[in-house]
Amino acid sequence: MSGIKVNGQKKLVLVSGRGYPELAERIASELGSELVHTDARTFANGEIYARFDESVRGCDAFVIQSHTHPINEWVMEQLIMVDALKRASAKRITVVAPFYPYSRQDKKGRGREPISARLIADLFKAAGADRIMSVDLHAAQIQGFFDGPVDHLFAMPVLLEHFREKLDADTLTVVSPDMGRVRVADIWSDKLGAPLAIIHKRRDPLVPNQVSVHEIVGDVKDRWCLLVDDMIDTGRTIASAAEALKLAGARGVVIAATHAIFSDPAVEMLSSDFIDSVVVTDTLPIPAEKRFDKLEVLSIAPLIARAIHEVFEDGSVTSMFDGAA
Amino acid sequence: MSGIKVNGQKKLVLVSGRGYPELAERIASELGSELVHTDARTFANGEIYARFDESVRGCDAFVIQSHTHPINEWVMEQLIMVDALKRASAKRITVVAPFYPYSRQDKKGRGREPISARLIADLFKAAGADRIMSVDLHAAQIQGFFDGPVDHLFAMPVLLEHFREKLDADTLTVVSPDMGRVRVADIWSDKLGAPLAIIHKRRDPLVPNQVSVHEIVGDVKDRWCLLVDDMIDTGRTIASAAEALKLAGARGVVIAATHAIFSDPAVEMLSSDFIDSVVVTDTLPIPAEKRFDKLEVLSIAPLIARAIHEVFEDGSVTSMFDGAA
Amino acid sequence: MSGIKVNGQKKLVLVSGRGYPELAERIASELGSELVHTDARTFANGEIYARFDESVRGCDAFVIQSHTHPINEWVMEQLIMVDALKRASAKRITVVAPFYPYSRQDKKGRGREPISARLIADLFKAAGADRIMSVDLHAAQIQGFFDGPVDHLFAMPVLLEHFREKLDADTLTVVSPDMGRVRVADIWSDKLGAPLAIIHKRRDPLVPNQVSVHEIVGDVKDRWCLLVDDMIDTGRTIASAAEALKLAGARGVVIAATHAIFSDPAVEMLSSDFIDSVVVTDTLPIPAEKRFDKLEVLSIAPLIARAIHEVFEDGSVTSMFDGAA
Amino acid sequence: MSGIKVNGQKKLVLVSGRGYPELAERIASELGSELVHTDARTFANGEIYARFDESVRGCDAFVIQSHTHPINEWVMEQLIMVDALKRASAKRITVVAPFYPYSRQDKKGRGREPISARLIADLFKAAGADRIMSVDLHAAQIQGFFDGPVDHLFAMPVLLEHFREKLDADTLTVVSPDMGRVRVADIWSDKLGAPLAIIHKRRDPLVPNQVSVHEIVGDVKDRWCLLVDDMIDTGRTIASAAEALKLAGARGVVIAATHAIFSDPAVEMLSSDFIDSVVVTDTLPIPAEKRFDKLEVLSIAPLIARAIHEVFEDGSVTSMFDGAA
Amino acid sequence: MSGIKVNGQKKLVLVSGRGYPELAERIASELGSELVHTDARTFANGEIYARFDESVRGCDAFVIQSHTHPINEWVMEQLIMVDALKRASAKRITVVAPFYPYSRQDKKGRGREPISARLIADLFKAAGADRIMSVDLHAAQIQGFFDGPVDHLFAMPVLLEHFREKLDADTLTVVSPDMGRVRVADIWSDKLGAPLAIIHKRRDPLVPNQVSVHEIVGDVKDRWCLLVDDMIDTGRTIASAAEALKLAGARGVVIAATHAIFSDPAVEMLSSDFIDSVVVTDTLPIPAEKRFDKLEVLSIAPLIARAIHEVFEDGSVTSMFDGAA
Amino acid sequence: MSGIKVNGQKKLVLVSGRGYPELAERIASELGSELVHTDARTFANGEIYARFDESVRGCDAFVIQSHTHPINEWVMEQLIMVDALKRASAKRITVVAPFYPYSRQDKKGRGREPISARLIADLFKAAGADRIMSVDLHAAQIQGFFDGPVDHLFAMPVLLEHFREKLDADTLTVVSPDMGRVRVADIWSDKLGAPLAIIHKRRDPLVPNQVSVHEIVGDVKDRWCLLVDDMIDTGRTIASAAEALKLAGARGVVIAATHAIFSDPAVEMLSSDFIDSVVVTDTLPIPAEKRFDKLEVLSIAPLIARAIHEVFEDGSVTSMFDGAA
Repeated sequence: MSGIKVNGQKKLVLVSGRGYPELAERIASELGSELVHTDARTFANGEIYARFDESVRGCDAFVIQSHTHPINEWVMEQLIMVDALKRASAKRITVVAPFYPYSRQDKKGRGREPISARLIADLFKAAGADRIMSVDLHAAQIQGFFDGPVDHLFAMPVLLEHFREKLDADTLTVVSPDMGRVRVADIWSDKLGAPLAIIHKRRDPLVPNQVSVHEIVGDVKDRWCLLVDDMIDTGRTIASAAEALKLAGARGVVIAATHAIFSDPAVEMLSSDFIDSVVVTDTLPIPAEKRFDKLEVLSIAPLIARAIHEVFEDGSVTSMFDGAA
Repeated sequence: MSGIKVNGQKKLVLVSGRGYPELAERIASELGSELVHTDARTFANGEIYARFDESVRGCDAFVIQSHTHPINEWVMEQLIMVDALKRASAKRITVVAPFYPYSRQDKKGRGREPISARLIADLFKAAGADRIMSVDLHAAQIQGFFDGPVDHLFAMPVLLEHFREKLDADTLTVVSPDMGRVRVADIWSDKLGAPLAIIHKRRDPLVPNQVSVHEIVGDVKDRWCLLVDDMIDTGRTIASAAEALKLAGARGVVIAATHAIFSDPAVEMLSSDFIDSVVVTDTLPIPAEKRFDKLEVLSIAPLIARAIHEVFEDGSVTSMFDGAA
Repeated sequence: MSGIKVNGQKKLVLVSGRGYPELAERIASELGSELVHTDARTFANGEIYARFDESVRGCDAFVIQSHTHPINEWVMEQLIMVDALKRASAKRITVVAPFYPYSRQDKKGRGREPISARLIADLFKAAGADRIMSVDLHAAQIQGFFDGPVDHLFAMPVLLEHFREKLDADTLTVVSPDMGRVRVADIWSDKLGAPLAIIHKRRDPLVPNQVSVHEIVGDVKDRWCLLVDDMIDTGRTIASAAEALKLAGARGVVIAATHAIFSDPAVEMLSSDFIDSVVVTDTLPIPAEKRFDKLEVLSIAPLIARAIHEVFEDGSVTSMFDGAA
Repeated sequence: MSGIKVNGQKKLVLVSGRGYPELAERIASELGSELVHTDARTFANGEIYARFDESVRGCDAFVIQSHTHPINEWVMEQLIMVDALKRASAKRITVVAPFYPYSRQDKKGRGREPISARLIADLFKAAGADRIMSVDLHAAQIQGFFDGPVDHLFAMPVLLEHFREKLDADTLTVVSPDMGRVRVADIWSDKLGAPLAIIHKRRDPLVPNQVSVHEIVGDVKDRWCLLVDDMIDTGRTIASAAEALKLAGARGVVIAATHAIFSDPAVEMLSSDFIDSVVVTDTLPIPAEKRFDKLEVLSIAPLIARAIHEVFEDGSVTSMFDGAA
Repeated sequence: MSGIKVNGQKKLVLVSGRGYPELAERIASELGSELVHTDARTFANGEIYARFDESVRGCDAFVIQSHTHPINEWVMEQLIMVDALKRASAKRITVVAPFYPYSRQDKKGRGREPISARLIADLFKAAGADRIMSVDLHAAQIQGFFDGPVDHLFAMPVLLEHFREKLDADTLTVVSPDMGRVRVADIWSDKLGAPLAIIHKRRDPLVPNQVSVHEIVGDVKDRWCLLVDDMIDTGRTIASAAEALKLAGARGVVIAATHAIFSDPAVEMLSSDFIDSVVVTDTLPIPAEKRFDKLEVLSIAPLIARAIHEVFEDGSVTSMFDGAA
Repeated sequence: MSGIKVNGQKKLVLVSGRGYPELAERIASELGSELVHTDARTFANGEIYARFDESVRGCDAFVIQSHTHPINEWVMEQLIMVDALKRASAKRITVVAPFYPYSRQDKKGRGREPISARLIADLFKAAGADRIMSVDLHAAQIQGFFDGPVDHLFAMPVLLEHFREKLDADTLTVVSPDMGRVRVADIWSDKLGAPLAIIHKRRDPLVPNQVSVHEIVGDVKDRWCLLVDDMIDTGRTIASAAEALKLAGARGVVIAATHAIFSDPAVEMLSSDFIDSVVVTDTLPIPAEKRFDKLEVLSIAPLIARAIHEVFEDGSVTSMFDGAA
């Protein structure tokens, strides 16, 4: 037969946007590799430029970006990097977005609204992405927005390991800050062997136009309360939940969340006396000025590194989270 | 200039699958029109054939199908009808699926699962559908699964109108049968001016491996309880919720749901003494053997007809539901 | 250079729908492998669920389904399995449909008809299929309906081998049951070294509105007649052809067909005294109640297994059929 | 409300490639319109250029091209014209290809063959065509190759009208030149009230490796034979069919075909003494040097004009051919 | 026939992003219409939200955005607005981007670079845009990046009209600031009846590694020089061109450009004594702090308004620019 | 785990169209391989047929075609070969088009023109091409027309190597024949260490309607002039440039170009006494009758072979051209 035969090889490369390069470096380090150096710049008029310093031809490429403020810059930078990888003949391109941008705009609440979370999926597809990897999607349905595989990781194992050492199940209650998060809190309560409580923010049915009150379902008096959520943005909701718990007699309030968006006035809110400690991961960068005494940051890098390893080696990502979802 | 000019015209046509032709006829009748007669048949080996008896060239076509048992037959029939419309030069094709098939498989709960609700959207797109119209999607995110406009209708105005006449807000409590439905129940409570209660089905935190208990949050004693849900499948969940309410002292239990799937043993479940009446819509057909004394069926046809009218006339579908979503 | 390199590997996995798992098991057995266990279920309302028990990441996956009655269930199940494979990062997905569903609806015979055979190809593409493998397509043009490779297998070698041992070319005539199958019968006649006859079913030109008569072209008197067709559905056509042959003096009538659809009243028809034996393959399951004394079933599994092997190993499928097409 | 409203208008424009502009002019004339003048040129190196002299913005555009020799030039020119229309904001683009190019390469007869008829459909789609209109496709399945509406016209009414005046049904036999065309001949026989005969070209089963013989099924002796086919390429098949008929005692042989490809040596073949007259349409141009005494050419222009009119006015194309297909 | 018929209507709506709403208002005003009010906001974490206050169903929608700093914000906002229009059933969506973002990244100059101008076209397509309208693309080939119609407008008529009144052709020379702009300058020279000069910035061939020198081709001594370019970013190139002209004896230097990007230190550069006046259009906003005495700004709004009018009314955009391109 | 694992292998195959098979053979020979034999034919009516004689399943296939006259035939043949490769399960298909067809039609110069260079990219995509490889694109933006990787090769290293031996930089001037080619000439001047001159063809500004004059910028008197261009079509431009140089006192004129289109009257033009020698590559075939004494043809085969090798082996194509672009 005509033609030339050689043995096949697979090559993994990691590239990173400028949203949070330290996280990407930690991931690379966990994998025993290095980031491909990238010349990424913003021109005077705001346009972004990116170019990789090494060949990526035929590679299994992972483009890591943390979608922190200014979020649209980092979305566009990641799209540009995907385009450059596609045109440079990368074999497969996986978008690693630890915090999925626009995840809260996942449906039309009213007429003539966009569904920006679907748009984001379409934009990555149009740029050339084959796969998406993300941590703790705001709604699991977002997996269905992308026309291809989505590796949905859970930060819970990272957070759980931390709390197992710190908290005593006998005096602990897991608390959901609102109705939408109950399912997640339920898994936590199960894993920690601790009872569950729920905070129900609703208007008082007996007083028309009354502002909402925080009703607490479950036993929190004299107990350590672990408030769990997927993200902390301005911190207002979680702070008033903490306040309600303390007023109801909680001995302490600990907060666990995956995504530390920390928009103003989050630092002020979370520094409230009603909160004893806050534990988050580094899916998003937390600059020095947003760090405060009660804050503890766990690294998501080992988890993402392991997932990338499984994807590259055709292992199983699901097996990393047995029982977590 | 060369060429021929004529004034433009828009033509609406309605066609129906065999899932529930009576509903389609009611919709046509509300619109003051008739269904285009369709020769739809199932051959001996199970293959489906469909052909329209009139030209649909250039038309704004609405293909109505109710996705009842055998649901895959009716999905395939509707896909075949969309294909036939596309090849017959219909100008625009809207899939009307009052009950969206596979809506509960809207995410990957575990590895290697399908996201069948997204698949359904992709299949309709592949067949040639331009738009989808549906009632009370199980998760609003399903709107984002289709690459095009989705008209999401709400049965609430139809059901509300019914209950406003029947129930007295002073003795009424709106009840959510589980945590996932609280947001909808909250709107009902708001619209009816009645207080809200929630049934929380969870394992007893103090007894390991204990089966779930029904905890009721809110005041139900001596009150009429209106349990609201989007669909009733086997009826098991709703029946045990009713039982819990009655055991807690409820004076009566009324159930309101949009989609009456009524899989076995729904009729037996809903005939329970704990339930006083059940009100559903006809998004799905309810054959004689599944009708029972306490059941009341409201027609969704006027609502769908009005939505089709708005779509055809470039009016606003959203304005039909101010405050409902 | 940055990055990680490992040697590439190819992995083949076989999964099966519930249409005819025995065939899939035979194929796996021929390949010296096993089916990946799949949790496939039908819920009370008719919706299908499927999930694979092992990781399929990076695999060359073959999804085997026999499209027997209820055919739309099995089409939908296979689509759902393809979707699940796509989202589980299978590298390449081949739909194995030994009997291509809706293959007879391959053109618009009249206005406003669907072309369902093309629709089926589009649906598999939309779900995520990269390739299709099928046996004896009703019209070879169906290959052109799918936007990608189609491996078109022929059952003829399997059937020929059987008849070469059983029939004596000196007393044999190959018969085409109608005008549309002449080309296939011609190849058979060539391969077996036996003469050809054709049955022409047409209206009598001299008698207006007369029902059709069976005109036999070629020598059948005192000969063994081998009637060849691609499929037997209700069996009416083939049974009246057999009758015509016997009335014309045929010594015996043997029927060979690839796809045993056997819709009612096929068993009754094929049990006719005019027919001496019927030989089919197991592209479709034949339940006990559809088996009868004169029926012989040859397994297509070795052929499909060999084709899958060639596809996986980048060999040649065509070379399996030199001169057959 | 904001915005500007005006009444809608539809505009039809006709443009033509250089394959056979006279046919396009006839079609325009039948429609009471004119072709939009197009500057179409071939540069010195063979590249084609095309530009329309008038605005086509918002128009319902029909691009007429006859795919005669050099066929690839005319395919490419039509693709370029479709691209220009798309970029010039035409509203809808219909490719009018009276003779569908590459229609005989409609399946893979052997491994590693193209399916060029599907490729042609994909190329027109890629260039921007919304619809295709063609006459007497070689295989009706080609309709399924295009992802959109295909208007399949039949020349039969044009040809039938001609023969009804010329031929006497009492002395006429309709003849199919081979097995593949029997279905069409059968409709002719039905429409003309004349009996049917078939020519079966096959190898003599009794003589191995014998060249094919022409076996005639049906009554042709002392009768006028009307041989019907979809196209005449080199004319070899039809000429030997005519010879066989005359040798079998036919009184006269008349040939009817839609597409007069007339590749060498068609003129020589058709000038045979065994042929009394040849009737074709002008779907393809017939230059002076390919015209001969026995040839009669009927214009397909009125039929195509009427179909374009129906498409533009949202009428029914199918109704033009009741019973013809 | 079944169905409902009404006369068709076309509706134009204009919506605007927040990049430069004043320009959008001017365009609306020129058209005698108003912008549809849009609720566009940026959340605390940088995510953008947009919703239209009126129904846009069935409309011919134009989404106007000026891509000024921060350019990625405004790209994303426009994408989100296109998504919202698509999901709100707008009939046709035209992206109006007077300054096309990323237009200078229109090719791979080196390996592993993106082609961001193509990416931008793909993103708009993915979001749902049907058409693009832009002014003075940096390279005309960008029209070919979008898969659909692109209305390419030229600011030249606006600028020319201004200069015809101000400048005397007898003492004027049109100057191209570099080799890439000669073709445009040539058209200016032709339109104004003034001679042409070119500035050639190149390294001195006789001195190795020498920095570039400005060589002036053509007669500029004692003449008014009109330097024309498509955009002014930092102003460095144009300022040194002006200096070279003055040093070569030019009596005055006037600068004309379409897009006033004015990144730092443009204002400083353009305030140079070598420059007598600068004329630009308002395709991009010029805030008060970037305005200076010698600057004159002409509005592009009438031109864009007229083009939108032609597009909506199916007129000809090309005819607006006879001879300009 | 179920399934079968084998080590992966990569296979390269080369196939060639009939445009210029000698070039393809040279490329194969450079790679130490052979072309897969292809049965490519043109039927009597002009339709093309192609079939590969060996299996290409799973291969990395390169389809080489030179787009010489008749250019549309060779485009269509290459499209058909890509379709055949796709349907034969080639793993990756790279179109090798040393001269990109229709590259000069890369923008809309006027309304209602096609952008045929984009159309060509779309047609190759539609047929199934994954990548394109081409030499010296007329405009680098054409890379952005294809939705996938484009390997853009430069002939400069081949030509430079030739001239380095032949020409003495001390007496050499590199000349750009017009304004559009200055950037390329500038790189040549840099690489050869020779000064640059430019020929500016423009109308005389002092004489209205005057035909263009050739103005020479730079020092050419008594020097050897190297005129560089990407292609020579009819040769008119380059011949009059040579004349202008000689009239300006050039000692000799040497012409270097990549693509020798050589449409009539190129041979006559290039045989002019003003031209001393012409050096081109064999991206296009140059038949004997178009060869003349002063012509030298360098082979592009080694360069393309090396690029194919880099693509197949996942090396870097860019590194072949450091500093060339």
